[in-house]
Amino acid sequence: MTLESQLSDFKQRDWQSLESTDDPVRLAMIGLGWWTIEKAIPAAQTADLCEPTVVVSSSTEKAERVRADNDLEVGLTYEEFADGEATDAYDAVYIATPNSYHREHVAAAARNGKDVLCEKPMEISTERCREMIDVCAEAEVTQMIAYRMQTEPVVRRARELIEAGALGDINHVHSHISMRLLDVNPDTDQWKLDPESGGGSMFGTGVYPTNTIRFLLGEDPVAVRAEEWSPSDPWEDVDENVAFQLQFPDDVLASCSASHNNYDVSNLRLIGTEGEINLEPIFHPWQPRTLRLAHDEMRSEYTVSEVNQMVEEFEYFAHCLLTGADPHPDGEHALVDIEVVQATHESADGGGWVSL
Amino acid sequence: MTLESQLSDFKQRDWQSLESTDDPVRLAMIGLGWWTIEKAIPAAQTADLCEPTVVVSSSTEKAERVRADNDLEVGLTYEEFADGEATDAYDAVYIATPNSYHREHVAAAARNGKDVLCEKPMEISTERCREMIDVCAEAEVTQMIAYRMQTEPVVRRARELIEAGALGDINHVHSHISMRLLDVNPDTDQWKLDPESGGGSMFGTGVYPTNTIRFLLGEDPVAVRAEEWSPSDPWEDVDENVAFQLQFPDDVLASCSASHNNYDVSNLRLIGTEGEINLEPIFHPWQPRTLRLAHDEMRSEYTVSEVNQMVEEFEYFAHCLLTGADPHPDGEHALVDIEVVQATHESADGGGWVSL
Repeated sequence: MTLESQLSDFKQRDWQSLESTDDPVRLAMIGLGWWTIEKAIPAAQTADLCEPTVVVSSSTEKAERVRADNDLEVGLTYEEFADGEATDAYDAVYIATPNSYHREHVAAAARNGKDVLCEKPMEISTERCREMIDVCAEAEVTQMIAYRMQTEPVVRRARELIEAGALGDINHVHSHISMRLLDVNPDTDQWKLDPESGGGSMFGTGVYPTNTIRFLLGEDPVAVRAEEWSPSDPWEDVDENVAFQLQFPDDVLASCSASHNNYDVSNLRLIGTEGEINLEPIFHPWQPRTLRLAHDEMRSEYTVSEVNQMVEEFEYFAHCLLTGADPHPDGEHALVDIEVVQATHESADGGGWVSL
Repeated sequence: MTLESQLSDFKQRDWQSLESTDDPVRLAMIGLGWWTIEKAIPAAQTADLCEPTVVVSSSTEKAERVRADNDLEVGLTYEEFADGEATDAYDAVYIATPNSYHREHVAAAARNGKDVLCEKPMEISTERCREMIDVCAEAEVTQMIAYRMQTEPVVRRARELIEAGALGDINHVHSHISMRLLDVNPDTDQWKLDPESGGGSMFGTGVYPTNTIRFLLGEDPVAVRAEEWSPSDPWEDVDENVAFQLQFPDDVLASCSASHNNYDVSNLRLIGTEGEINLEPIFHPWQPRTLRLAHDEMRSEYTVSEVNQMVEEFEYFAHCLLTGADPHPDGEHALVDIEVVQATHESADGGGWVSL
């Protein structure tokens, strides 16, 4: 082993067997908010195994403007997309609309026979998630939920270290995520402040610790309890802050918290009998991500800055479609996070552990 | 302001008005475990305002050996100390015996009219703590509990930053402490594994996050809930692991955990609307302590390595005695941590929030 090879190997795509294709997956990008325009379309254009060809929005004007700005093939309204227009121009869809519209766009994609990459959280209730799973199964289309942490090299290497026993028996996990939503979008009428649309900190940010811990441990929580509190004015209808504990099998308890109205912080720490892994920052794609490992008397640290999480995610999704592999974060997997969100709200209402 | 002055000012003793004395406080060191011999006696010898003169142990042989090794004046047994021997040779006592013996040594010190610096946690029950408070009050001796974090420069600077509003409104606190007790002392018959003597992780380590958060916020918790679990063999009678949430006034929730059988980790993080303070490592005196502040777009980091926490603590205690000041971590203050420990055990037994 050389230290140089460790550095280059760190970013490896351990899931990748196919490195190029003459027939990239053509993507329809659904929902043209800042995330899609600034992050997702450029990432899909950078990826080798897929390419954006179609954009779908609420108005013809917006779709046409974004199509032209990015030199794409087709701009559609949601209605035109749902009616099956231009299905020859794309193979799969990427959905980044407000959470409560995921179900209808997935159903339309499935009707059109198109594979689905849908943003997290999956939907606003487990019932709606179940409908999405069923409609994709019936149409025999692939559905992946866009947990970009699962293709983040720092997270994948952490998982390998855990599987190799670097931490011994893990007992404690701590994770926090916060960012100030109103700094990104100061509109107090936005859907992320609306409980009916899947707003609040647990839906908007709490799924990151939840899903990433599940992925790292390879286990699902068996119970959750939570406190939610909203001291600030525009947050009265949804959870501004949440602190939740997740009970996992094998004596692991995760102490997590999330806020959509606190200073940007993102970290995830796992502590075992033999070592510690500390990932910080980890969840915010605009920051370099760092893995710190402590084991015996040794400490090592790896920072990944140039890997684009959205490129990794699009490549992985396209790779699954091109090779016939099942994506790891599928509907059944993502549904569990919605169960956790619902259980945190239930626990915060009544107190105490809610079994999952 | 210059950056150089910031570095030298960082370690300032903001509590200090008297820098030297011709009449240092003479200390009797009670309980000669590894901590007293390796850490406390050398620290008291280094301090300017006090000096160790007497050692007290279970046997004449051990007391005499440690006395001679350290060139001190008198070695006493516990019985001789309790009987008031050699009271001319010391002004105050430092008590570092197992927790469940604190009460009797404090009572003896008070009978002898001696001021007290007693190790944390204060005792094994709130009733015993109350007796210690009363016996010192009646004898009109000063009692300080040895929370060395309160004179740690990193912690004091963090408190000043919080008071100055650097974090805005604090909502979330995370803290974890762990160390492998049996690596330090492999004896499975030791008192730290005995529930009757104040053993277990919450007593042994959980008081660090609890007290330090209280000190930083300037507030006491109003409720606690906890889970305790002991997956490993010699831990069946006490809490090997504990995860506890502390509800503080003003919308602050602290997510804490502690283990006496996990890899060495110690950190404390406070997150507010305007910034973050991350103290890591912080609790283990054999590691340099680091404060990281994030606020607006700026981040700063300070590491203190050469400050000896025990020297700071002895100087502060002696300074209080020489100037007639009341020590901050007095009996009433330290009693609150024992209330928290009892409440965590109660919550872990029955579940749910326990009010304090």
